[in-house]
Amino acid sequence: MINNLINKIKDTKAPICVGLDPKLDFIPDHIKNKAFEAKGMNLEGAAKAVVDFNKGIIDMVWDLIPAVKPQIAMYEQFGIPGLEAFNETVAYAREKGLVIIGDIKRGDIGSTSEAYAVGHLGKVTIGDNSFSGFEEDFVTVNPYLGSDGVKPFIDVCKEEKKGIFVLVKTSNPSSGEFQDRLSDGKPIYEYVAEMVDTWGADHMGNDYSYVGAVVGATYPEIGKKLRKLMPKSYILVPGYGAQGGKGADLVDYFNEDGLGAIVNSSRGIIAAYKQEKYDVYGEADYAGAARAAVIDMIEDINGALGV
Amino acid sequence: MINNLINKIKDTKAPICVGLDPKLDFIPDHIKNKAFEAKGMNLEGAAKAVVDFNKGIIDMVWDLIPAVKPQIAMYEQFGIPGLEAFNETVAYAREKGLVIIGDIKRGDIGSTSEAYAVGHLGKVTIGDNSFSGFEEDFVTVNPYLGSDGVKPFIDVCKEEKKGIFVLVKTSNPSSGEFQDRLSDGKPIYEYVAEMVDTWGADHMGNDYSYVGAVVGATYPEIGKKLRKLMPKSYILVPGYGAQGGKGADLVDYFNEDGLGAIVNSSRGIIAAYKQEKYDVYGEADYAGAARAAVIDMIEDINGALGV
Repeated sequence: MINNLINKIKDTKAPICVGLDPKLDFIPDHIKNKAFEAKGMNLEGAAKAVVDFNKGIIDMVWDLIPAVKPQIAMYEQFGIPGLEAFNETVAYAREKGLVIIGDIKRGDIGSTSEAYAVGHLGKVTIGDNSFSGFEEDFVTVNPYLGSDGVKPFIDVCKEEKKGIFVLVKTSNPSSGEFQDRLSDGKPIYEYVAEMVDTWGADHMGNDYSYVGAVVGATYPEIGKKLRKLMPKSYILVPGYGAQGGKGADLVDYFNEDGLGAIVNSSRGIIAAYKQEKYDVYGEADYAGAARAAVIDMIEDINGALGV
Repeated sequence: MINNLINKIKDTKAPICVGLDPKLDFIPDHIKNKAFEAKGMNLEGAAKAVVDFNKGIIDMVWDLIPAVKPQIAMYEQFGIPGLEAFNETVAYAREKGLVIIGDIKRGDIGSTSEAYAVGHLGKVTIGDNSFSGFEEDFVTVNPYLGSDGVKPFIDVCKEEKKGIFVLVKTSNPSSGEFQDRLSDGKPIYEYVAEMVDTWGADHMGNDYSYVGAVVGATYPEIGKKLRKLMPKSYILVPGYGAQGGKGADLVDYFNEDGLGAIVNSSRGIIAAYKQEKYDVYGEADYAGAARAAVIDMIEDINGALGV
């Protein structure tokens, strides 16, 4: 799947993914009202609004991008109907040929991490049968519990040829509270990065490993350093756009082969219609605004990379 | 809810919770077969087996204990039907008056953590209405992203009078890889503990804060130290029993008031019937074995505490 992701990045010339994090505030009224009419102003109605909104976005951007990154929290908040909407979104994006990065930030120990891994990337065995509960291609994993928490994911990834992105340095303002603490002169996130490199050596695709890293766009100097510490790991970069990252900041997240990073934007794309820059599209054509924002983002990043 | 939890611990004289982590291997064949006959050998059948098994346990232990701790990964692995089983389990335990600690180990940033908090502890607003997607009383939270990831949970907890347990030092063998790294002479988990104390000061119940900590039973010396660093925080202690912790190891996790810790056992209770010690009960009376194991666990801990 890492080979597949890379091939799709090469084909689209777009090292980006679109974060499908549909807060209700982002969803135009005409979609919400229709969904509420059909299902009620309840969890089911919200879930339908989310799916309809996502499908509109996917229809307008699938040909431009390699991958989408649904943030499961935004679905989980709507309970069971919300998670059904997550699955519908994943299935629809897969139909369109997109790689699915489930932003789930799970992480536990031993058999518990295994259960998450099986549930999201693999198949759970029930009697003589096996089933997929959720069906992403990659998921994000929290490393705080150490190898015991991460390796069960890698074991499932090996069977399924799927991958993970381990949180190394996150994009948020307080990410430094623990991640930046120096130990023997090195911040904690570097220790995590070294482990990502080690874990990845054990599960390689053609040129890159199946074990990637999350490094926020908001800390370019750190990105540069981490790129070198994990040369074989793909870096998933959140924080572009709404959180402040720009293409010019991200050059050093890439390797010299022009690969090695995939930059995510969520709000900046899916709620682009709310920005002055795209207000010609209006709420009715929110998906057209998303397409324009994707094109601009690709241009910004490729321009910075000089490709 | 922290006051409620403490009152229930006092009433039952049992500073413990039962981990409802029903792997299919733990569930007796007669329950699985009946569930598969009713629903099929599929996700729905597995989910029904889980609920039936849990109800059997709850029926036999609810009068002895203050709380249960369902581990959501064990449900999530069965997809949507699994999470419906999670909700059914939570609802059934609540009917029996038990406090629900959702072991979800979520953690993200800003509005994303808020979505998890709203989904599990609060209510999500949809138009003019609000709904609970999942409905625990406490959840566990991963601190790797810092205050940005934790505070949204606390904000929801304040509104709902609910609480969280933040991972400080986990019970697994590799927990030290990052948690034990020394920074200025102090391990990372102490920095997290200090933040737990700070966060908790902002959301106090009568005697304890609504912000607790997870500290594994397998590191008693660390438990003793952390107890003192977070005097107002309840400590949720995993790792008792199957992972090796014993009552005698846990004395220093408690404060001098005899309160301040709640010890979890999962496999040691729910799969007690598989232990030689309880094999008189057999598979048919797995719940009787669980009750006996709960009584022994309470005796072990209270004996060590000298109460």
